[in-house]
Amino acid sequence: MSNERKKQLQESFNRSKMMELFGAEITGIGEGYFEITVAKQEFMARPAGMFNGSTIATLVDVSSGYAGASAKPEDSYFTTVELKVNYLNPAFGEQLVAKAQVVKNGKVLTVVRSDVFSITNKGEETLAATSLVTLMQLSKKAPDKQID
Amino acid sequence: MSNERKKQLQESFNRSKMMELFGAEITGIGEGYFEITVAKQEFMARPAGMFNGSTIATLVDVSSGYAGASAKPEDSYFTTVELKVNYLNPAFGEQLVAKAQVVKNGKVLTVVRSDVFSITNKGEETLAATSLVTLMQLSKKAPDKQID
Amino acid sequence: MSNERKKQLQESFNRSKMMELFGAEITGIGEGYFEITVAKQEFMARPAGMFNGSTIATLVDVSSGYAGASAKPEDSYFTTVELKVNYLNPAFGEQLVAKAQVVKNGKVLTVVRSDVFSITNKGEETLAATSLVTLMQLSKKAPDKQID
Amino acid sequence: MSNERKKQLQESFNRSKMMELFGAEITGIGEGYFEITVAKQEFMARPAGMFNGSTIATLVDVSSGYAGASAKPEDSYFTTVELKVNYLNPAFGEQLVAKAQVVKNGKVLTVVRSDVFSITNKGEETLAATSLVTLMQLSKKAPDKQID
Repeated sequence: MSNERKKQLQESFNRSKMMELFGAEITGIGEGYFEITVAKQEFMARPAGMFNGSTIATLVDVSSGYAGASAKPEDSYFTTVELKVNYLNPAFGEQLVAKAQVVKNGKVLTVVRSDVFSITNKGEETLAATSLVTLMQLSKKAPDKQID
Repeated sequence: MSNERKKQLQESFNRSKMMELFGAEITGIGEGYFEITVAKQEFMARPAGMFNGSTIATLVDVSSGYAGASAKPEDSYFTTVELKVNYLNPAFGEQLVAKAQVVKNGKVLTVVRSDVFSITNKGEETLAATSLVTLMQLSKKAPDKQID
Repeated sequence: MSNERKKQLQESFNRSKMMELFGAEITGIGEGYFEITVAKQEFMARPAGMFNGSTIATLVDVSSGYAGASAKPEDSYFTTVELKVNYLNPAFGEQLVAKAQVVKNGKVLTVVRSDVFSITNKGEETLAATSLVTLMQLSKKAPDKQID
Repeated sequence: MSNERKKQLQESFNRSKMMELFGAEITGIGEGYFEITVAKQEFMARPAGMFNGSTIATLVDVSSGYAGASAKPEDSYFTTVELKVNYLNPAFGEQLVAKAQVVKNGKVLTVVRSDVFSITNKGEETLAATSLVTLMQLSKKAPDKQID
């Protein structure tokens, strides 16, 4: 992955108001791979303390979109076709990490799996959710319609 | 649906910091039915202007959880087992309305469909997304672990 | 829907060895709608007697593909992008009917919902499963690559 | 995995009329893992020659059910809650292999991923589909209601 492409993705991510609100950070980036980490905030939690399903679905959606884009050599415009999340274990940690990996990088459709881990302050990791996301590339270049 | 049960669900919804952040309002409530409306805020939109996939997934998750709870006569504690959203049309409106309807109200598992509509200021409605959500009832009564 | 288009779909269905094996019949056909009925055979049943999940998934897949094709004015070649079935109730009847309705008839992608009902000899109907299926149109015309 | 448990699963599989029809064989079995292989028959193929979506969905369903059962120490009775398949590449091979691995072995719900590979006579493998399947354990022991 070129440094220019990496920079494009980072800048796009930094422009996202949604990710700003979540205090999300990119913690991994590669060709067909994108990783996002958030620290727990009150609005992300259920009364019992674990991260709620909406926060997990949001991280799945965003990490998958960027993973899909990271597998393309040039600026791309994707839309999410469908998203499926299986919640596996309560996410009782203080941080949530979404690790999105492209499974199929097609011409029109891209399929991504994003695994979401909950991490406690002691560093214990739990697989909170797994997912499958289908993205469609709308155009190879659309200056005003980047992924963000 | 008893007025008491209705009030329980409304109070639970009003305690949700996530829904407060989204400025969400209950616009419909019945036995096995729950409807939420939000007005667009900057963090909910893509640069091209339409509502983003994360916002739609969040409304699907929350509306489905409450629809599932509304089908039970007493305070219930649900967890989302899995959530699947199909994005059908760009959500270019100013408001988003999630209409969640229970498809199967089982003893252990509940299945809900939430249709999300985008509404313009002129009142034009577009079906932005449809979904299927599976919920599991963890206990019939858990005072400190209500749906919110 | 033109009679010619209807005939195309019926002939395609009749060429299907899979549907022949299942003894499946078209019991409804319209623009964006396709209905298939099968009578129970031993290989379709679990030991406890109900239709198994594979038979239901097969009817979902086939009925959705034809419903998608029925929404197009001319011979079309589709591939299934993804398929999601929620099993709602045990299918204890003697017949299974899949009713597939197009939810979104897009240029590239088509989304279909197929509801599968179990019917007893007394005519009692149970909703055994609901589903969401995404199809992609590969070409508008491909003589040797019809939907079947 | 005990030899007795392995034998139970094999005998259950051998009783399946559906698997007999498909000429399916168990080609791998372990704790939380189950692998099935089929050779192409005419009813499994589309006119263009690749395996059809229904055959792939059937292998996903059956392999996942047995993988879920293989993670339990004693005879178990499962029902499929929901099944989601993403078709990734045309399955042009002569054989289809479904490799199902338990992702979460829960008390009530089990989640399995089954990857389906298409294999040519030259031994070239293609990932034709991936999936996520949710199973529910209905009872720990039900002599007349084994997994098959």
